Amino acid sequence: MKTIIPKSHPRYESLIMRERISEGLKKGFVHETGLIAHGRGEAFDYIIGEKTQSFSDDAIQAAAKALVSAKHPVFSLNGNVVSLVGKESVQLSQLIPIVLEVNLFHKSDQRVQLLIKEMKKVGAEHVLGSHPTMHIPNLDHNRGLCEEKGIFSSDVVLVPLEDGDRCQALKDMGKYVITIDLNPLSRTAKTADITIVDNVTRAIPRLIYWINQIKDKNDDVSVLDTWDNNKNLKKIYTFLSKRLNHMD
Amino acid sequence: MKTIIPKSHPRYESLIMRERISEGLKKGFVHETGLIAHGRGEAFDYIIGEKTQSFSDDAIQAAAKALVSAKHPVFSLNGNVVSLVGKESVQLSQLIPIVLEVNLFHKSDQRVQLLIKEMKKVGAEHVLGSHPTMHIPNLDHNRGLCEEKGIFSSDVVLVPLEDGDRCQALKDMGKYVITIDLNPLSRTAKTADITIVDNVTRAIPRLIYWINQIKDKNDDVSVLDTWDNNKNLKKIYTFLSKRLNHMD
Repeated sequence: MKTIIPKSHPRYESLIMRERISEGLKKGFVHETGLIAHGRGEAFDYIIGEKTQSFSDDAIQAAAKALVSAKHPVFSLNGNVVSLVGKESVQLSQLIPIVLEVNLFHKSDQRVQLLIKEMKKVGAEHVLGSHPTMHIPNLDHNRGLCEEKGIFSSDVVLVPLEDGDRCQALKDMGKYVITIDLNPLSRTAKTADITIVDNVTRAIPRLIYWINQIKDKNDDVSVLDTWDNNKNLKKIYTFLSKRLNHMD
Repeated sequence: MKTIIPKSHPRYESLIMRERISEGLKKGFVHETGLIAHGRGEAFDYIIGEKTQSFSDDAIQAAAKALVSAKHPVFSLNGNVVSLVGKESVQLSQLIPIVLEVNLFHKSDQRVQLLIKEMKKVGAEHVLGSHPTMHIPNLDHNRGLCEEKGIFSSDVVLVPLEDGDRCQALKDMGKYVITIDLNPLSRTAKTADITIVDNVTRAIPRLIYWINQIKDKNDDVSVLDTWDNNKNLKKIYTFLSKRLNHMD
């Protein structure tokens, strides 16, 4: 039985996200640890204020520039990303354009196939991930498998909701890594070149917005050497610290 | 296939907890939203420092006094509590003694039965919950059902990992409510009479420790009028705020 959540519910957005992740679990393309990870995100989103703060918007704008100026950008998808922003990921992939590739922590052929199928259902034409012939060094065999025309040969990788190991291994390969992670204290957040501390459901549409702005203006889009990720993370720690001090 | 987690892993305790909750889901006595709730707890536990801080220990000591001096204390169990501290809950129930009752947010007869069975497997003799003839006012029918000899007639209720609605409804009935919740910002945390902001896996053993201390000393154990829960919560907000400011 599907739970009906009224739009008037004060926690509507949050409950809808939970429902989507939960549906993903039932359909078999979200791993149960994906639910736990989603919960961690919920906690940080609550402290952040459940909206795109200015430091996040700055990071999204930087990410837009990095993606537009990339030669071979790849968007790494997992179960939570597909559940939460499958459709928006397709829009983004067509706009930049960016190659879509399914790449999982708890990998199984079945889950990869289910995720590709789900992405095609919401409009994706090509999704890589089912023929991984290459390997990301510094990741154990199963988790490191990737496609030659996808992550392996990419210059810029967008990897939202990702674990620290994979993020570090991609960096070790010389990739420019953009992540979206609600936990600014995570290893992923600290390792990436650009860390967007925001909910993917807000960050991906906002990324689409900024890419449209940049594409229209035909600006110089070089960002790779100017973005200071550590400085932005420090702003976030200060912001969260203040938020917690005024929440009583 | 069961995941083997080496004791040397830096996140061993945290991973074992995840494993237990995940097992509970597979056995059918943890609801999928229990996994999301566990993730929220993980995030706060990380900020708290994954240990029992002094403010938590003060709350645990107050809770020990309230439970020992109670006439008819009841311990309300749900899927996450049974998964994480089933065995320790049995020890606690024999020590005070305290009546055990299964009471769920996503209630189903099957889950109640599975939880009672699980508790008996780890040593519980009596667990209420399968014959709820009474109702907690201010909660919708299914969620409000409870046993006459359990929660309904209790004076002090220990309800760890609980939602705000139930906590408020118990308060409205005049119960003295003790909760264990890693999120000090939750409605539950703000509504309870004593809020223990700690992981149940640390708090329940520590509660057992304090009860043994009190019972041995035969002290005056009255606490109901002296504990200032708001004051303690404010200490926690300040602590978390400082932690976040020094995490970069």
